[in-house]
Amino acid sequence: MNVNYPNGKKYKPIQLDNDLSLKKKKNGSYSNRGMTLEEDLNETNEYYRERKIAVIHKKPTPVQIVQVDYPNRSAAVIKEAYFKLASTTDYNGVYNGKYIDFEAKETQNPTSFPLKNFHQHQVEHMEEVMNQGGVCFVILRFSRFEQVYFLEAKHLLNYWNRMMNGGRKSITKEEIEQNGHRIPLGFQPRIDYIKIVDTLEKVRKEGIS
Amino acid sequence: MNVNYPNGKKYKPIQLDNDLSLKKKKNGSYSNRGMTLEEDLNETNEYYRERKIAVIHKKPTPVQIVQVDYPNRSAAVIKEAYFKLASTTDYNGVYNGKYIDFEAKETQNPTSFPLKNFHQHQVEHMEEVMNQGGVCFVILRFSRFEQVYFLEAKHLLNYWNRMMNGGRKSITKEEIEQNGHRIPLGFQPRIDYIKIVDTLEKVRKEGIS
Repeated sequence: MNVNYPNGKKYKPIQLDNDLSLKKKKNGSYSNRGMTLEEDLNETNEYYRERKIAVIHKKPTPVQIVQVDYPNRSAAVIKEAYFKLASTTDYNGVYNGKYIDFEAKETQNPTSFPLKNFHQHQVEHMEEVMNQGGVCFVILRFSRFEQVYFLEAKHLLNYWNRMMNGGRKSITKEEIEQNGHRIPLGFQPRIDYIKIVDTLEKVRKEGIS
Repeated sequence: MNVNYPNGKKYKPIQLDNDLSLKKKKNGSYSNRGMTLEEDLNETNEYYRERKIAVIHKKPTPVQIVQVDYPNRSAAVIKEAYFKLASTTDYNGVYNGKYIDFEAKETQNPTSFPLKNFHQHQVEHMEEVMNQGGVCFVILRFSRFEQVYFLEAKHLLNYWNRMMNGGRKSITKEEIEQNGHRIPLGFQPRIDYIKIVDTLEKVRKEGIS
């Protein structure tokens, strides 16, 4: 379903979801300060791809194109378009034959992760992916502390359902610490989420055998 | 890598890659006449998703956003943007835990499929996906005959390399008939490519055991 953002509201996700070229690193160093979560993940995915560890890409920002000009002797120009709500998560790809699918979000909130960072369609998509045997999770960053967590989609779904049943509209940091997996920030790769996928897969296999 | 289309050339892929809402069915019947390959595949994917057979989506058209206006009380408007060359294929998702990845193209040519329908980055992406154990293929339509073929990426790569080594710039229809799999057009789903994935998987397993 394609939904334009409601009127009167500044389009906020552009800060996170949009093209890297619109952004500048706040400093030129390799420190994580000033790097967005998206930039860190793009570099991580590039690292995986170059070393043939995994092939995972961020999907393009979905845009509803209304008007396109074809000026002579130059490239087609989109003159009117609108951001659409994504019907899936932002990242997907393949690791060792397995389907990988995740969404990445960050919050300034120090004590909990607001669920408004996700929307119904994304949560439904995650459920569908889980039902197909895909590996599905979210990467959550607490920006103030530069702490990054890997949380399996099954947990996110539980918290989402809690909210839908009238419960709190966020996941507490304690809950994330308890059910998620902290990803230490590295130099290369910056956010080594595949390592967590490996760990979970190992646990799963041991559980079966 | 982001490449704008060369100057002086009408942006052609918009016919195939762009948003469905920009297009109208040429007739209201359920005949395939007037339906684009993209429309057929979107309906097929919707069919798979609704019946929990597979979760496969078309990626959004990649766009380089240059200027965005935020008018008061209305949605953000993209005022200047350009089409980018996709660095991956258009479709991917999960079927029974497995990663599925494909590109779909059609030609008016009655006797061969021109390889200019693909570009280097896409072919490299397909190779990477194959190396990760993903299921990768192309769906080729000969529009004049409304014939649709499923061709595994490994074959496309062979023909691509033949071209790179100075050979012909297309795949002959005979070659596609020989190495590909004809997908009969159905009512629901229209293009049942998952059936071919099943067949190939069965052949692969029998080959192993």
